[in-house]
Amino acid sequence: MKGTANAPEVIEVENGSIVTPKGFKAIGIYTGVKRKRLDLGAIFCEVPASSAAVYTTNRIQAAPLKVTKESIMKEGKLQALVVNSGNANACTGEKGLEDAYEMRSVSAEHFNVPNHYVAVTSTGVIGQYLPMDKIVPGIQQLQPEATIEAAEAFNEAILTTDTIKKMVCYQTTIDGKAISVGGVAKGSGMINPNMATMLSFVTTDAVIEPSVLQQALSEITNQTFNSITVDGDTSTNDMVVVMASGLAEHETLTPAHPEWNGFYQALKLTCESLAKKIARDGEGATKLIEVQVQGAVNDEEAGKVAKKIVGSDLVKSAVYGADANWGRIICAVGYSGCEIDPDTIDIAIGPIQTLVNSQPVVFSEEEATAYLKDEETIKINVDLKIGNGTGKAWGCDLTYDYVRINAGYRT
Amino acid sequence: MKGTANAPEVIEVENGSIVTPKGFKAIGIYTGVKRKRLDLGAIFCEVPASSAAVYTTNRIQAAPLKVTKESIMKEGKLQALVVNSGNANACTGEKGLEDAYEMRSVSAEHFNVPNHYVAVTSTGVIGQYLPMDKIVPGIQQLQPEATIEAAEAFNEAILTTDTIKKMVCYQTTIDGKAISVGGVAKGSGMINPNMATMLSFVTTDAVIEPSVLQQALSEITNQTFNSITVDGDTSTNDMVVVMASGLAEHETLTPAHPEWNGFYQALKLTCESLAKKIARDGEGATKLIEVQVQGAVNDEEAGKVAKKIVGSDLVKSAVYGADANWGRIICAVGYSGCEIDPDTIDIAIGPIQTLVNSQPVVFSEEEATAYLKDEETIKINVDLKIGNGTGKAWGCDLTYDYVRINAGYRT
Repeated sequence: MKGTANAPEVIEVENGSIVTPKGFKAIGIYTGVKRKRLDLGAIFCEVPASSAAVYTTNRIQAAPLKVTKESIMKEGKLQALVVNSGNANACTGEKGLEDAYEMRSVSAEHFNVPNHYVAVTSTGVIGQYLPMDKIVPGIQQLQPEATIEAAEAFNEAILTTDTIKKMVCYQTTIDGKAISVGGVAKGSGMINPNMATMLSFVTTDAVIEPSVLQQALSEITNQTFNSITVDGDTSTNDMVVVMASGLAEHETLTPAHPEWNGFYQALKLTCESLAKKIARDGEGATKLIEVQVQGAVNDEEAGKVAKKIVGSDLVKSAVYGADANWGRIICAVGYSGCEIDPDTIDIAIGPIQTLVNSQPVVFSEEEATAYLKDEETIKINVDLKIGNGTGKAWGCDLTYDYVRINAGYRT
Repeated sequence: MKGTANAPEVIEVENGSIVTPKGFKAIGIYTGVKRKRLDLGAIFCEVPASSAAVYTTNRIQAAPLKVTKESIMKEGKLQALVVNSGNANACTGEKGLEDAYEMRSVSAEHFNVPNHYVAVTSTGVIGQYLPMDKIVPGIQQLQPEATIEAAEAFNEAILTTDTIKKMVCYQTTIDGKAISVGGVAKGSGMINPNMATMLSFVTTDAVIEPSVLQQALSEITNQTFNSITVDGDTSTNDMVVVMASGLAEHETLTPAHPEWNGFYQALKLTCESLAKKIARDGEGATKLIEVQVQGAVNDEEAGKVAKKIVGSDLVKSAVYGADANWGRIICAVGYSGCEIDPDTIDIAIGPIQTLVNSQPVVFSEEEATAYLKDEETIKINVDLKIGNGTGKAWGCDLTYDYVRINAGYRT
């Protein structure tokens, strides 16, 4: 979906959020679904916003996903998005579906918009019915605002085992007008390609049709949210929703627009930044791992190899142990199922070359250990040297705390 | 490869081992490749034995695998098998291949058999050259014996992070003559379907042609060694080798032999028992997990679903935490990529039914926790109710110790 011209400058906005784009408000409140933390949030747009979404590939999909799909399919527009945490409303059968519909209709009434302008979603424990006695009065109290505090409250309301809030905003210029893309996300365990326990909501004031937005989002999701893995599990509830208010009032964006790339980059940087924050905040993680693969037969295979490496429990444990264990990396390359030449593989861990043409080179173990200990982001670079495909994937180290968290938490 | 008649009785032999079948001797010694434990072993057959093998599916294959393949391909016979632990001779390029050939020729000379009657293999650290100054004199000291102590020494010599020895023997009767199948294995981390860091060597005195043996082994491997997973990693060095001395002197076995099923079952039980021992001894594991899936569209899909469940870090952590978390089980079913009906899934954890038709049923959490705490083997039963396919897979729980072991050990 490349555009026709070079990208205009895209800059990150300090203290930007999902309410930076014109027309958006947000809020997060406490209703008691969770024990202590905020657990119900909403994003509201003052006009019907062009909308697009991608959903979990898990064959078991939670009830709210079905309801949200139905909303977006109708007209490609959303005006309100309501999310609860603490309960996923998944594996809850007919009753669960009724609850999701009720969550939508109560929200539609509260925000005074048609049902199909409302998206609903839930995250948390599977297999328990939504406590509608808390959700319904909760929705009726939602008063979104266009402040950073309100945006942060929304972010807090969608978290589960997350330890940090995940928010970002980029700006660029289209037809001489500033446009913003703001995003927020949750997700730390059950994270794998193809939408794992993660939710992400992106707002923008760009002017764009739903179908064009959908294609851009699908492409970008593959290179960002679908390129992270925490534990290889793919959850039942995940989705990414983008809402575009159109209030920036430039010419409608399509890939033919001379400044299309600026918008595309802003959306991609937003998604990539959120994806990396999710990977870094993987359950129990102490480090972000970024794997870059080049020289694959094509980009898709490069991405696949990168994800196999970053998904290997052995590689993840080695990073936690500050062990420059390239053997486990080449091993993951070998079982990736991708085309490789067993004799041409180069591997570097940060600045340290460890393997050239599949054979070990002498390197300073001390230097390697120092790199693995000191850096917040561990970079692994693999060159397969059989083609021009490149790809990236992100993950995190595997730690005692991952086990502790997941031996206890009932998802 | 079903036979034409019912299976004769197959019984486990107490204190049976790889030297129980007629014609076999074994030994394990210390050469200093490892710091302390035995690290070099051999199995020797007094006659050329019909042989078959399966190898890792990892595209990166260690040098000794290439040499062993070459040996077996020539005539389908082996007389000696020499293994070292402590060094995998993987990712060692031309020099590594030369070393593996030398390991073979020194062994051939020592045992006074042709080169192609010798299999060699190595397990341990990747990317370091074999210390031939220890391996060569080590081989020259190998004096195999037909005692259980010698078989145990062999077993010890092939271990890496294993905590228990893995040995088993079954007997049955063919044409009125007792035949035995004995097996030994190593492997605890990097274990995944399709041959992970595991080695297994099986001996038998049955009379069978190499090609028939190969077909039986390939089939059985899929249902046993390829149905276990510890951490999803598939190593560069794994193989299973079967040697059949033919000294039981019954009629040559083929699937048309009336007692074929007895042999097939003895071989399958040997492999299944070793596979389960490997899974149970997964790095840091405290429990064996056995997942049985029924009602899939076919056996292959049932096996795939079973392996996805048993391979889920979240399921493994939940078992470790004694948490009857069926949500994670159904989630793994959903992302298995197999055909399912999202509304017809039943899940039981041991004797406790937790889900019927994809909806939770009330069960005693207390009883469930007690089952998960008290049992050595945790059974998970999933019925997809869309077909007649059945399959099993084995794995282990994910514990703090897995992380501890793998944050430190340089494989």
